[in-house]
Amino acid sequence: MSQQIAAAEAMLPKGVKDFLPIKAAKIEYLKTTLQGIFTQWGFRPIIPPQLEFLDALERGLGEGLRAKTFRFDDRQSGQLVAFPPDITPQVARIVATRMREVPLPLRLCYQGRVLRHTEQQAGKDREIFQSGVELIGLDSPEADAEMIAMAVESFQALGAKDFTIDIGQVEFFRGVMDGLPLTGVQAREVQEAIARKDSSGLKTLLESAPLNDRSREEILALPRLFGGREVLARAEQVVSNDRSRRALDNLARILETLEVYGVQDHITFDLGELRGLDYNTGVTFQGFLSGFGRAVCSGGRYDNLTARYGYPAPATGFAFNILNLLFALDRELDAVALRSSDALIFQAGADKQPAQQVARALRRSGYAVARDIIPRELSASLEYAKKMHFRTLIYLGEQSAEARIINLGDGSERMVPIQTVVADGFTL
Amino acid sequence: MSQQIAAAEAMLPKGVKDFLPIKAAKIEYLKTTLQGIFTQWGFRPIIPPQLEFLDALERGLGEGLRAKTFRFDDRQSGQLVAFPPDITPQVARIVATRMREVPLPLRLCYQGRVLRHTEQQAGKDREIFQSGVELIGLDSPEADAEMIAMAVESFQALGAKDFTIDIGQVEFFRGVMDGLPLTGVQAREVQEAIARKDSSGLKTLLESAPLNDRSREEILALPRLFGGREVLARAEQVVSNDRSRRALDNLARILETLEVYGVQDHITFDLGELRGLDYNTGVTFQGFLSGFGRAVCSGGRYDNLTARYGYPAPATGFAFNILNLLFALDRELDAVALRSSDALIFQAGADKQPAQQVARALRRSGYAVARDIIPRELSASLEYAKKMHFRTLIYLGEQSAEARIINLGDGSERMVPIQTVVADGFTL
Repeated sequence: MSQQIAAAEAMLPKGVKDFLPIKAAKIEYLKTTLQGIFTQWGFRPIIPPQLEFLDALERGLGEGLRAKTFRFDDRQSGQLVAFPPDITPQVARIVATRMREVPLPLRLCYQGRVLRHTEQQAGKDREIFQSGVELIGLDSPEADAEMIAMAVESFQALGAKDFTIDIGQVEFFRGVMDGLPLTGVQAREVQEAIARKDSSGLKTLLESAPLNDRSREEILALPRLFGGREVLARAEQVVSNDRSRRALDNLARILETLEVYGVQDHITFDLGELRGLDYNTGVTFQGFLSGFGRAVCSGGRYDNLTARYGYPAPATGFAFNILNLLFALDRELDAVALRSSDALIFQAGADKQPAQQVARALRRSGYAVARDIIPRELSASLEYAKKMHFRTLIYLGEQSAEARIINLGDGSERMVPIQTVVADGFTL
Repeated sequence: MSQQIAAAEAMLPKGVKDFLPIKAAKIEYLKTTLQGIFTQWGFRPIIPPQLEFLDALERGLGEGLRAKTFRFDDRQSGQLVAFPPDITPQVARIVATRMREVPLPLRLCYQGRVLRHTEQQAGKDREIFQSGVELIGLDSPEADAEMIAMAVESFQALGAKDFTIDIGQVEFFRGVMDGLPLTGVQAREVQEAIARKDSSGLKTLLESAPLNDRSREEILALPRLFGGREVLARAEQVVSNDRSRRALDNLARILETLEVYGVQDHITFDLGELRGLDYNTGVTFQGFLSGFGRAVCSGGRYDNLTARYGYPAPATGFAFNILNLLFALDRELDAVALRSSDALIFQAGADKQPAQQVARALRRSGYAVARDIIPRELSASLEYAKKMHFRTLIYLGEQSAEARIINLGDGSERMVPIQTVVADGFTL
């Protein structure tokens, strides 16, 4: 048995998975629930293709994702093509080309799967399921707040209770670093130390750098600038440059709107969060579920992206990582996954017509119903129905006018005239 | 403008497309509707990956699809990998490996996108959207009838009226050809002429072949064996071999069950239909919408597939081609696509709180609502709302206790207290 599973796993490349019915039902539920929120906020679906020319795609990718892109020769065009490692650049391309006549702002959403090369370490996904939104054409903090409020509402719709949206602002860091006499290597090392929240490493790095005290102080403060809203006030006292101050003002205005939405309790700030530095142009955020280390959603402002496709427009957005969500909420979603089938119908005798009529009527009422069309004994059918998590088994005897409805949860039974079962308003 | 579109199209490889909101909403509707039918028939979702080892995938592919598979070196494993050109072989692999402990029959469904190399002719899709089901573990005609009945019900759920399911049986042809003294090349030419329904070409081919009159007659009959149920009786009179007779018997039993389902009016037969000859083992079928030449769904029995992954089991299934459906039903689906957004909210003045509260309340009631958070005049907002197909615009004046609700369809207006709008039970 374990050998069999090992053989089955060896049949798949590392980093991709098969999702069997229970997990697949959970994934469907997550996607549908998020889609519901997106729709309610007025976002409309868009479906970019799974194949693009590499050069068109790369225009919209940061360094990190370029290196992770699956690319190969298209034997038909002879050009390099690629599978998208991210959907946002595709949306940017579409907005900048096919949709540039449509009035702004655009509220767009997508459900898709992307591929990324990742380090061959255990458990790293190469196929990523993304459900996200893009709000294009607005540069106001209100637009960013809309993204964050939608992320919060998404968590709530999924039934999550303990979650946090952690907000950063890449312009704050850029303001601190602006014009400092650091080499490219030094600047990168500083950035990495801050991202690791490695204060002592950062200190060592800065000792040898030709900085004045004020700059040194600003940089050293970064790994500690995380926490509640008081972070904004603390940061205000640390920095003196305009760019960082504008970033703080932007965060304060976003927070103001979030308070109107009543979602401020889920918000934390982290000005040392530098994810998105090669891509984002303002606020960034990540959503976390308590007890799960990886972010389940991430987003932020990206005002330079559509311009790379010839159509400058401010933009903000976010995406949920569905597989991270699945992993974090797996147990909570059990009920969702087992809800799938209501009844298995077993028909004794050669005449299958009653079973077909019952099945048809119940499906019309919205029930999920399968017929057990394999020739076997009731006992075998019952065992099958239990193993496959059917809620009930409906036994139709040969030429009987009654159905025997067996509740597979508690074993209780009831006899109901078939006429009643097929009539409107019957409840299974 | 036309240059712009040309430039945008040049940005994509041939055979793939961007789907903008209206088309994307239609695609979502098609998928959701089919998923509803699949679920009601007791089918459960499965999600295979978009990346497979080429050798594992090829085991389950017929000649035709092997040649169309996107393949390349995986720089991480060094092995040849591929993007699936079809989902059924993936389901077969999963059933034969990870699900072999699960009791049969298995009712599985999927929604996926596959890639296929196609001839560079205009309009041929390389990315194909498939929604399909597989019923594994049953070899009875009833199981095949279940597939066909589900296909009919799917058409009906989509609101299609004029549609046909065209049924073939590859075993009928195999019986006719069994043991004939034809070379491989001759047999293939005969097959192609039949597939083209080219009776005169077929006649010429057979003149030079060393066949007795009976065999010649059987083969020549094939291109004409299509039509209603009377085809089965006509075919019965033409053939004398057991294999073909068993195929006819199988079709008669399938038809019997379809009559119980009451779907026989949508059925035609075509014994010269040879699609699936390298893959199918019994009945095959294709679904057509009147006025649209390409099949929008296809399926059939494939009893040899899971065995290629080490687990013999009979199987039958079908899949809808979503893009063909979209093309055929495009106009009929307009209403679906435009239903997307109910209201755009315009808030005058600096205090945005009333607008946020109204938006929140309406979303809770299930409405799709966006706020116009761009600073502009009402007239510009109105124009935007109309262009973007919003159903209503809700105008909230500065410090006003009433909302002005403008119906964008007929231009009518009404004033409603904000208290009423945010209360339970308010209808937009």
